[in-house]
Amino acid sequence: MAQPDFERMWRDLAPIGRSTSSGGYFRQPWLSAELELRAWFREAATARGLEVEEDPFGNLVAWWPPQGVSRLAGARTSTSGAVLTGSHLDSVLDGGAFDGPLGVVSSFAAIDLMRERGVAPTRPLGVAAFVEEEGSRFDRACLGSRLAVGAASWADARELTDRDGVRLGDVVEGGTSTLLDGVDAYVELHVEQGRGLVDQDAAVGIGSGIWPHGRFRYDVAGRADHAGTTRMEDRADPMLTYAMTALAANKQARLAGQRATFGRIEVRPNGTNAVPSHVTAWLDARAESDQALADLVAAIERQAVDRADRDGTTVTVTAESVSGQVAFDVPLRHEVAATLGSERRRVPVLPTQAGHDAGILQEAGIRSSMLFVRNPTGISHSPEETAGTADCLAGVEALADALTGLVG
Amino acid sequence: MAQPDFERMWRDLAPIGRSTSSGGYFRQPWLSAELELRAWFREAATARGLEVEEDPFGNLVAWWPPQGVSRLAGARTSTSGAVLTGSHLDSVLDGGAFDGPLGVVSSFAAIDLMRERGVAPTRPLGVAAFVEEEGSRFDRACLGSRLAVGAASWADARELTDRDGVRLGDVVEGGTSTLLDGVDAYVELHVEQGRGLVDQDAAVGIGSGIWPHGRFRYDVAGRADHAGTTRMEDRADPMLTYAMTALAANKQARLAGQRATFGRIEVRPNGTNAVPSHVTAWLDARAESDQALADLVAAIERQAVDRADRDGTTVTVTAESVSGQVAFDVPLRHEVAATLGSERRRVPVLPTQAGHDAGILQEAGIRSSMLFVRNPTGISHSPEETAGTADCLAGVEALADALTGLVG
Repeated sequence: MAQPDFERMWRDLAPIGRSTSSGGYFRQPWLSAELELRAWFREAATARGLEVEEDPFGNLVAWWPPQGVSRLAGARTSTSGAVLTGSHLDSVLDGGAFDGPLGVVSSFAAIDLMRERGVAPTRPLGVAAFVEEEGSRFDRACLGSRLAVGAASWADARELTDRDGVRLGDVVEGGTSTLLDGVDAYVELHVEQGRGLVDQDAAVGIGSGIWPHGRFRYDVAGRADHAGTTRMEDRADPMLTYAMTALAANKQARLAGQRATFGRIEVRPNGTNAVPSHVTAWLDARAESDQALADLVAAIERQAVDRADRDGTTVTVTAESVSGQVAFDVPLRHEVAATLGSERRRVPVLPTQAGHDAGILQEAGIRSSMLFVRNPTGISHSPEETAGTADCLAGVEALADALTGLVG
Repeated sequence: MAQPDFERMWRDLAPIGRSTSSGGYFRQPWLSAELELRAWFREAATARGLEVEEDPFGNLVAWWPPQGVSRLAGARTSTSGAVLTGSHLDSVLDGGAFDGPLGVVSSFAAIDLMRERGVAPTRPLGVAAFVEEEGSRFDRACLGSRLAVGAASWADARELTDRDGVRLGDVVEGGTSTLLDGVDAYVELHVEQGRGLVDQDAAVGIGSGIWPHGRFRYDVAGRADHAGTTRMEDRADPMLTYAMTALAANKQARLAGQRATFGRIEVRPNGTNAVPSHVTAWLDARAESDQALADLVAAIERQAVDRADRDGTTVTVTAESVSGQVAFDVPLRHEVAATLGSERRRVPVLPTQAGHDAGILQEAGIRSSMLFVRNPTGISHSPEETAGTADCLAGVEALADALTGLVG
């Protein structure tokens, strides 16, 4: 069993980027904690004799080549193609330990288990760690995988700036990635971020697809005024427009069974005794279909604009990123399910409302599949995010079975 | 006329701490811009032969002693007592040029004018610049004057921290101030922060008193969750509680003819795809009487708590500062009015909804009075805050007349 390896790796990662006050993780890409995670990744790969490749965006793959193949380049152009597993190492701000790292750690542990079992891959098998999956620094989710597959252009991406004004172009070299050349399939293991597997009493599930989702920046402009001396009726207060929009988004999503969240806000000047001049806030919206998402977003914007008229403010809405509905490759899903579908396990199939690199690869023509590990609370993107050790080890076993089926 | 002196001083101050993007001022105490203003104050005093005294909190007074008196200490213990004028140099974040500096510049210009007219003071006359009047750095309005009169304790104040965690105790020495010993009266000139003088078509007015006001910190605690995968009904989102409270505060104040503003907010973790765990926001509330303020604040808190129950969040409200109603000294007001009340000018009497150091001094037993200069737009605490030059010069003349009456 891969248990000791899994637990050792998990223990090594636990302190990296953890806030002592909240217990949550701050693992924004290319800042100190994430740089430490990258070093850890290289060590874990080297300890296993895997060869690490890094693309100009900082995406990493640790390759396990087929027996007798010394150069990866050759292996990856083999007619059968390479198989990729892995996930990401970065976190949202004050996030949990599992979202991302569980997939990377489980991938290494799955390789250990496959070796214990004497599996010899006939195709190259790689463990990937994609960068900036959460968009916690440059505000573009799945930025690393988007750049790797060419779904995002480097010319645009290099101008992105973080909250301190640092340009992405000054952080990584950029250029063109050949990291995924010859990759035929991707299997990503991830902690579940809802209670689907709890409801179905299963340790592991398979993903059917990803809800469409988008990020929309709301810029509300009003007029700064003295909070004491300016009569209420003489104000143009963008905070009011924002507040009504946040409530409207929640109500709209609740009524429609979708998701809409305002979790980030910046206020200028953000002083106690000043009516703000500007409020910028970000809407995260997701829905079960592309049409449902468009309807949801339009309804929220309409209510924001109506309220702005009453407040004497103006609202500008900018779609920062929109991802359409993703259906994971159905034959691949059946292939993976077949390796897990013994009488030992019941394997539910379920969608996810979260974006994942697997969705980006699927859309770019690399058939992809996801495995989910049960989350007992359903809580994610939070210090309280968790998964039980037994479930995590069941995930490692399922991943090893699936990968064995694909490369064995 | 003091016009050239006034305009030169105004020009000297114009660039200090001004944001090139917004045109507003960032003059938080003991940071670079405000340190430059303090140096300017000392130069303006020295150029006039005034002697500068600074207390352990950084409050400044430039003294003009009576003829033949060389040491201020002796002058200030004279039985008749000293007269103080002045205001403050700090600004709110992204504030205007006039709120504060107009009073200091006008005080120096008034002294120039008094000298031109041959006035020889029989009592010491001081120009004050109180620190942290706006509370823009340590979140306590009128902190300098409160400390100077002993209305705030240094033991508490030195533990205050700014947004970067810097303690006030590490910024200034602290201790006990003797700066106001022997001061008998204070006259503060200030730009009006509403449209009272516009409505009454007058360049200058006299203050009757200050509305009671307070700052209340709302700490709303919820549960961080993934913005995509957590069903709306499973959330405990503090942003919703906040949003409803901000709207309720506005409505409550509007209905009652009072003022309530949420202009400052801090969100944790403030990530686009995370339901926040905590929202902290500050309510600035003001009303025409102590009872009306208490009613307003209670009504807002009640609605916040009701909404928190529905959201599954908790709200904690902390009164960070509450100032009761202030009535300026009535005999002093009549004395000041008498010096201005020629047929040349109509001098309206009006209250202010803004806190001022004059209110702190009045409450501490130093009879105080305020002069207001017309604000054509009524806008304050904003880059758009303005006053016409002719009105400013009328203010200088009124202040010179008032001070001549008190010390001549």
